[in-house]
Amino acid sequence: MAGLLDDIKETLLMGPGPSCVYDEVYTAIARPTIGHLDPYFIKIMDALKEDLKTIIGTSNRLTMPMSGTGSSGMEACFVNLVEHGDKVLVLTNGVFGKRMEDVAGRLGAQVDSIQFEWGTPVLPDKVAEKLRGETYAIVAVVHAETSTGVCNPVQAVGDLVRPTGALYLVDCVTSLGGIPVRMDEWGADALYSGTQKCLSCPPGLAPLSFSGRALGKLNARKSKVPNWYLDLTMIMNYWEGNTRAYHHTAPINMIYALYAATRRILEEGLDKVYARHRAAHEQLVAGLDKLGLSMYVQKEFRLPMLNAVSIPEGADDAGVRSRLLKEFSIEIGNGLGPLAGKIWRIGLMGHTARPENVDRLLKALAACLKK
Amino acid sequence: MAGLLDDIKETLLMGPGPSCVYDEVYTAIARPTIGHLDPYFIKIMDALKEDLKTIIGTSNRLTMPMSGTGSSGMEACFVNLVEHGDKVLVLTNGVFGKRMEDVAGRLGAQVDSIQFEWGTPVLPDKVAEKLRGETYAIVAVVHAETSTGVCNPVQAVGDLVRPTGALYLVDCVTSLGGIPVRMDEWGADALYSGTQKCLSCPPGLAPLSFSGRALGKLNARKSKVPNWYLDLTMIMNYWEGNTRAYHHTAPINMIYALYAATRRILEEGLDKVYARHRAAHEQLVAGLDKLGLSMYVQKEFRLPMLNAVSIPEGADDAGVRSRLLKEFSIEIGNGLGPLAGKIWRIGLMGHTARPENVDRLLKALAACLKK
Repeated sequence: MAGLLDDIKETLLMGPGPSCVYDEVYTAIARPTIGHLDPYFIKIMDALKEDLKTIIGTSNRLTMPMSGTGSSGMEACFVNLVEHGDKVLVLTNGVFGKRMEDVAGRLGAQVDSIQFEWGTPVLPDKVAEKLRGETYAIVAVVHAETSTGVCNPVQAVGDLVRPTGALYLVDCVTSLGGIPVRMDEWGADALYSGTQKCLSCPPGLAPLSFSGRALGKLNARKSKVPNWYLDLTMIMNYWEGNTRAYHHTAPINMIYALYAATRRILEEGLDKVYARHRAAHEQLVAGLDKLGLSMYVQKEFRLPMLNAVSIPEGADDAGVRSRLLKEFSIEIGNGLGPLAGKIWRIGLMGHTARPENVDRLLKALAACLKK
Repeated sequence: MAGLLDDIKETLLMGPGPSCVYDEVYTAIARPTIGHLDPYFIKIMDALKEDLKTIIGTSNRLTMPMSGTGSSGMEACFVNLVEHGDKVLVLTNGVFGKRMEDVAGRLGAQVDSIQFEWGTPVLPDKVAEKLRGETYAIVAVVHAETSTGVCNPVQAVGDLVRPTGALYLVDCVTSLGGIPVRMDEWGADALYSGTQKCLSCPPGLAPLSFSGRALGKLNARKSKVPNWYLDLTMIMNYWEGNTRAYHHTAPINMIYALYAATRRILEEGLDKVYARHRAAHEQLVAGLDKLGLSMYVQKEFRLPMLNAVSIPEGADDAGVRSRLLKEFSIEIGNGLGPLAGKIWRIGLMGHTARPENVDRLLKALAACLKK
C-alpha cells in the first residue's frame, strides 16, 4: 500500500464530522465487492432500506441512500421537487440554511427566507406570520444546524406547514442517529442525512426519504428533473420493485459500510444511542464549565452531538485546534461565517460520543489552554 | 458485523464493472477515517491528483475525483460547461452516448447528435461533415462504449473538433487505466472516468479533468452552475490552492481507496498494465473461438477490457449468466437496449485482466453451454 496511507494516524474525531467509525463498519467496507445487480447485493440494499426507515421514523417506501455525500441529499431533494418558478421558503439560522437557499435558487426557485440569528433557533411564531402572508410550494429547515449547534423545532414548524399544503423538507444530516428523527410524526415530505455524523460511517452516502406527497409532486412534474445523476424517478427503479433497472453503478462498499452502521445502531437500540449522546454532551458541558469555558448556545436549544463553545478571550483559535490535532490526535472544528474565531465546534457523534473520549478531550484542551 | 455482510461470496467480476478490487485497495479503504480538512488528508489529495494526471495524460491543474460514481462525472462535465441554449453535438453509438444526450438536454442545451450503429465506431468522416455545417459549443464522445465494446477514434475526432473552437468532452469511464488515455494529446477539454472499471477500486468516485479552455468557459459563465453539489468553481477551492475551503465533506475512505489503486497501477507501470489487458483480451477471444463463440464487434474496433460476445443460437441468455454466478461465482454482463438478448459483455478490467481468470471463465462458460 502507498506509504502515505500506511502512515495515517488514528484520530479522535470530535469535529463537525466525520466522526469516529465503528470497527464493524471498517470491516464491512473492505468486504469483497460484488456486482450492483447481483441478487445478493439487492438483498443488502433491501435490508438497508428497512434499517433506514426505522432510524428515520418513516414508513415511506422511497427511502434509500443517494450516491454522494450529505450535500448530494440536499441537492437531490431540491432538484427533484423544485420546478422553475416554485416558491420556496427557507428558515435559516446557519450555514446549512444558507446553503439550501443557494441550492434552491440555482434550480430556478423563487427563494424567500426568514433569517434568524446564528446560534439561536428558528421561531415558529415568525414562521406562522410568514405563512399567513404567502403560499409556498416547499418550506425547508435544518433540524440540527451543524454550523451553530442549535436544534430547530421541526415538529412545531411541521404543524404550521402542513395545513398550508406546502411540502415540508427537513435536513437531518447531523441529527440522524443522535437525537430522535420522526419524519412521519413531523409530517415531513423530504428528508436527507449524511453517513459521517451520528451514523459513524465514512462520508460518501446521503440517506434520503420522500413521502407519498413528495413522490406525487415528483411524478406530476411538467419537466424532466434537470439532474440525470440524482433523478429519483429513475433511481427508485433500481432501489425498488422487481426489475431493479440499472441506473448508475451503486457505491457497493459504501453501502456495505452504511448497512453495518445501521445494524450496529439498531442492535444497541435507538433509545440507548440517544441517551449516550445526551450523557456525553452533559459530561462535556460540565467539564468545559470547570475549565471556565462557556457554551455559545442557550441551554434549551443545544444539540448534544454538536457543541458550540465560545473561544475564551486571549485564546489562539487556530493554534489550539492545531495543537489538539498534532499533539493529542484530536480534531475539533472551527466556527464558520459570522462565528469564525468566536466558537469551537466539538462533535460528539455516534461512536465518538463516549465518556472516555470526552475525558481525553477535556484533559487535552486544559493542556492547550494553559498559558 | 451484520450476518448478510459476513456471507458475501467473493465473486470473479467479469461484467461491465465493478471489476475485481486490488488487495491493497481493500486495505486502504479500511484505513482510519481522518478529517477532510486535516493537513495530512490534503497531502493524500495532492498525491492522488498527481497520479490521476499521469494516468489521464494531462498537465491540467483541475484534475480530481468528483464525490459520486462515474455518471456524476458526466453530470459534472455538462452542468459546469453547458449554459442554457448552448449547442452540443453528441456522437452516439451506445448507451453512454444516449445518456450524454439526455444529461445535456436536461440542462437546457440544444442537443444535436450523430447516431452510429451500436457495435460500430464513430466515423470521423461523418463528424467532419456535420462540423462543416454547424458551430457547436461542445462536442462529446465516449472513448470506450461499455454497452457495445467499441473503441471510438477519439484522437481523430479531436483533430476535427479543435479547429472549430468547440470544447471537446470525452467519456473515459471504461478506458482509463486499461488502454492509453492521452487527454492533452487528443486536445480534450473535459474528461471523466469511474473508479470501478480498469482502476479496480470500488465504485464511488469519478476522476475528472478540465483543460484551461474548459476552465475559461466555466469562469465566464453568465449564470451560476445549476448544481451546487457539482459546482467546480467551488470544489476547486477545496482541491487546490492554499486555503482549501470546505465545500462538502469529501468521501475520505473512497479517496484512500482510489489513491491505493492509482499507486498500484503506476507501480506496475502503465505500459505493462495496458499489455496485460491486451493479452487477456487475446486469450479470451482465442478461447471463445474454440468454444464456437464469436465476437460481436469487428476486430479493429474492439476494446480489450469490454468484450461483446454474440449469444449463440439456442443459448439461454439469463440462464447462462445466472448459472455462472451461482455455480461458478463469476459475473458477466447482459446486453443493453437493442443488444439485449444478443450479446454477453465480458469485462477484463484492471485486476480482473489476468490469464487465470480468463481460463476460469472459459471453463465455466463451456460447462454452462453444454446441452
